[in-house]
Amino acid sequence: MNEKDREFWGEVCQDLIAESQKAISPLIGSEDGGEIVKIGADGTPTTLIDNLAEKRVMEVLGGVDRSLILISEEIGQVVVGNGQPEVIMVVDPLDGTSNAVKNIPAYGISVAVAPILDKKVPVTVKDIQVGIVKNYATGDIYSAFKGKGAFINGLNIKPSSKNDLSQVSLGAYVYRMDMGKIEILCKSVRRMRILGAVAIELAYVADGTYDAFVDVRDNLRIVDIAAAKLILEECGCTITDRFGRDLKTELNVLGKTSLIATCNSVIHGEIMGILEGM
Amino acid sequence: MNEKDREFWGEVCQDLIAESQKAISPLIGSEDGGEIVKIGADGTPTTLIDNLAEKRVMEVLGGVDRSLILISEEIGQVVVGNGQPEVIMVVDPLDGTSNAVKNIPAYGISVAVAPILDKKVPVTVKDIQVGIVKNYATGDIYSAFKGKGAFINGLNIKPSSKNDLSQVSLGAYVYRMDMGKIEILCKSVRRMRILGAVAIELAYVADGTYDAFVDVRDNLRIVDIAAAKLILEECGCTITDRFGRDLKTELNVLGKTSLIATCNSVIHGEIMGILEGM
Repeated sequence: MNEKDREFWGEVCQDLIAESQKAISPLIGSEDGGEIVKIGADGTPTTLIDNLAEKRVMEVLGGVDRSLILISEEIGQVVVGNGQPEVIMVVDPLDGTSNAVKNIPAYGISVAVAPILDKKVPVTVKDIQVGIVKNYATGDIYSAFKGKGAFINGLNIKPSSKNDLSQVSLGAYVYRMDMGKIEILCKSVRRMRILGAVAIELAYVADGTYDAFVDVRDNLRIVDIAAAKLILEECGCTITDRFGRDLKTELNVLGKTSLIATCNSVIHGEIMGILEGM
Repeated sequence: MNEKDREFWGEVCQDLIAESQKAISPLIGSEDGGEIVKIGADGTPTTLIDNLAEKRVMEVLGGVDRSLILISEEIGQVVVGNGQPEVIMVVDPLDGTSNAVKNIPAYGISVAVAPILDKKVPVTVKDIQVGIVKNYATGDIYSAFKGKGAFINGLNIKPSSKNDLSQVSLGAYVYRMDMGKIEILCKSVRRMRILGAVAIELAYVADGTYDAFVDVRDNLRIVDIAAAKLILEECGCTITDRFGRDLKTELNVLGKTSLIATCNSVIHGEIMGILEGM
């Protein structure tokens, strides 16, 4: 993907983010927004506010004069525009839906872009070149361009340099699951948070707000993590599945994974040591 | 406490909240604010930002022309003003310190006021007449006056009417502890949050943002919960310790408790059923 294309698609992302935020803002903190209106392509319930966010994303992309494949929660996978699609855009139109409905200030959007180089080769998370996560509640925009670093509101970010697990701030999803060795992890860290907005919480690892994020439920969707994965990698974080393997999942709406994202390889090793064999 | 006194002390609270917020605002999101400057009267570390918040509270109270006893994290218990103290004011000058330092949007202040009716009788959490919690990050102010209801930004609030544990949004502190039966609770709810700001999360139960909040670590300080307890009670929530007992702890800086706060007695019963014998 050349510089010019990257810039073009980056601007498309910025535009759809701004428009989608405007579309949902009347429903923030409103129970109506949480009404389930259908079951999305990923098999999970789509709420009114999710639906509104995605609809606006679709409208903005419909006005772009170049062609793409959109992968998103409710619609699944669709070609937008005429002609050969140039890129795959992976969107979670509303990260942290239940927070948005309850007005807990951690909800936003995640958008990732990967070029389609060869129609015959599947595009995976490794091919993502642009990743943007915005926390609508705070206005913070996290972004990364492959090989160019990661940013918050245009300023370079870096993860924490912690190397002692007992001092770690951990984001970890530990409900609706068997705790197993996660209990040991929860006992080993300094503090724990569950904000309920995965893309934002992954960006928190990238800028040192958290030191690590763990979800071993094999329940994270590619749309949740696609953008944040690039942001994490671009600032030197370590990010794998719960077996310590590189993420190389194909970009689609059904793929799910576990995730261990850490500020560095030392903390990653300590967490893997605890969870080993889980 | 008559209407006039209640109004007077309510205004003192509003004033010290506004002033303390102004004092700490330059340190929000700054690592400097997190520097530990001393060990507080409650035995926990006091950071620079905690210290600044409490100092400003003290200054504001020093300018009040009536006398009170202040109970606060760092200073412990002090008489402010001359003459016979009229009230005890219980303050957590900065709820969610580590969030404030990291700019996670859940941090604020908790202030409660109880009249001193008889010097010989200890004043407990049951005597609190005014409770105010402000989330500085969002600007939301939760308040309650005994017998007058509970409010957010001046508007009446009420808790959720959920009566099915599997649909509950639970705030629960589950790290640095043996999980025990809490694991069953975490598996039984719809979703879980840990925002790291207890007073604000208790207020979230009062206004239906959460359905319940549980901390069984016997580690919550009176300064953390004093204001929120009144807010919860004034809108009909159920709030007990982990044994299902009424909270009647004396107002002091060292007292600690567990907490089960729920939107109603049905959810309280379901949670107690799970945790029984823990």
